[in-house]
Amino acid sequence: MKSWVRYRSRDDRIGFGLQDELGQIHVHDGDMFYTPIPTGVLLKADDVTLLSPCQPSKIVALWNNFHALAAKLGKTVPSHPLFLIKPATSVCGTGASIKRPKSYDGKIVYEGELGIVIGKRCSDVDPGDASRHIFGYTCVNDITAAELLNEDLNFAQWTRAKGFDSFGVLGPCIVPGFDWRAASVVTMLDGVERQNYPLSDMVFGPEQLVSHISRDMTLLPGDVIACGTSLGVGSIKNGSSVRVAIEGIGALTNSLT
Amino acid sequence: MKSWVRYRSRDDRIGFGLQDELGQIHVHDGDMFYTPIPTGVLLKADDVTLLSPCQPSKIVALWNNFHALAAKLGKTVPSHPLFLIKPATSVCGTGASIKRPKSYDGKIVYEGELGIVIGKRCSDVDPGDASRHIFGYTCVNDITAAELLNEDLNFAQWTRAKGFDSFGVLGPCIVPGFDWRAASVVTMLDGVERQNYPLSDMVFGPEQLVSHISRDMTLLPGDVIACGTSLGVGSIKNGSSVRVAIEGIGALTNSLT
Repeated sequence: MKSWVRYRSRDDRIGFGLQDELGQIHVHDGDMFYTPIPTGVLLKADDVTLLSPCQPSKIVALWNNFHALAAKLGKTVPSHPLFLIKPATSVCGTGASIKRPKSYDGKIVYEGELGIVIGKRCSDVDPGDASRHIFGYTCVNDITAAELLNEDLNFAQWTRAKGFDSFGVLGPCIVPGFDWRAASVVTMLDGVERQNYPLSDMVFGPEQLVSHISRDMTLLPGDVIACGTSLGVGSIKNGSSVRVAIEGIGALTNSLT
Repeated sequence: MKSWVRYRSRDDRIGFGLQDELGQIHVHDGDMFYTPIPTGVLLKADDVTLLSPCQPSKIVALWNNFHALAAKLGKTVPSHPLFLIKPATSVCGTGASIKRPKSYDGKIVYEGELGIVIGKRCSDVDPGDASRHIFGYTCVNDITAAELLNEDLNFAQWTRAKGFDSFGVLGPCIVPGFDWRAASVVTMLDGVERQNYPLSDMVFGPEQLVSHISRDMTLLPGDVIACGTSLGVGSIKNGSSVRVAIEGIGALTNSLT
């Protein structure tokens, strides 16, 4: 299965292309979503640093979208997707440092998730038409400064807690046509498995999410819907490494600094 | 006082310029925030349709930032700005229709507010240095689909309720160097005054907001911080017109359709 990547080359140029099974990148020009044009240039994986595979205008991040986690937390399953926005400035790619905010000494939490990458500007999409607007899938590590969330009793600070620079980890690539139904999200903390949950347990699947959310706001090419997490969320210590992997997509590895 | 506007001309070209006291627009080229270059072209106000005066990557929208409203709602004054993000796709300008979401029959609420327009990419800004990063000020009508907010008892849907297309009304212009300290926000619904509150009642003023929020996420040129509203929030019926005015900036007039 080929996958789309964005990279920075050794001569500091940013580009994108299709990565093949050998890891080689077939460089493309133009726009990834509408008019990718093969240039004939081939790069080795070792010659580039991967970046976030797209540059979303927003990440729409779901809360309470897995039956198992809802049951554990004693929450009812929602009747409409529940979400917040992580800003474009929160995005980083595999290998990038997750940066502890200067003003925050508290607990920082990882959440391994599936990410839907939007391919076409869309609003009011019917569920049966949603797959046409999905460019592909990526892995997400939805980072949270957990102690900020309920710091003010009148207002849950979802945006603040999850919106810091480098808290929207995406990658390593985007896989079009990925079959999420049989896949699991596996999160390792310093080599120890902490999450391993099936995507089939989602409350709202990708087509439903695209349809519902596109009725709430226009979605743009490259926008990412982070499908929410399930059991096994935990905290990351300074220096620790988190790896979010989905078989068929790849692995996203980042350390907290 | 001159102010920056964006417009669509009769021949469907989008541009920007400085509007003078007579309403004439002195067209500029380049980038409004870094390198605005006067072209010598002058347009009459009647020859253009005003657009939102900037195209923010995000609107950071404050909740509970006025002492009078906090007192009325019986809420404690927060120790840190409380905010959500309204997406770029929510933005519209003066004269544009506020569009009722197709899926929503409930109450839609106006909130007249002061908007801070960021001029420079910034993070971790000291309060004393914040004014350097403020390009100017605009009016905001922060629209909310109020009945969605608490539809799910486990999760306040701020982003969904406030993120719909056309729910982030900005304009009519950006005024650099505007002195907000002596100004009031006046909101009229179908010609009847509903809000008239002094900006001096803010919990966190503009410099403090820029400083605090820039420690939570990087702010980009054109980003808008909506400073929150005070007393007199109310609902808009289909066909009704709302006018948010701040003396020294201008008036933002929109109808719900």
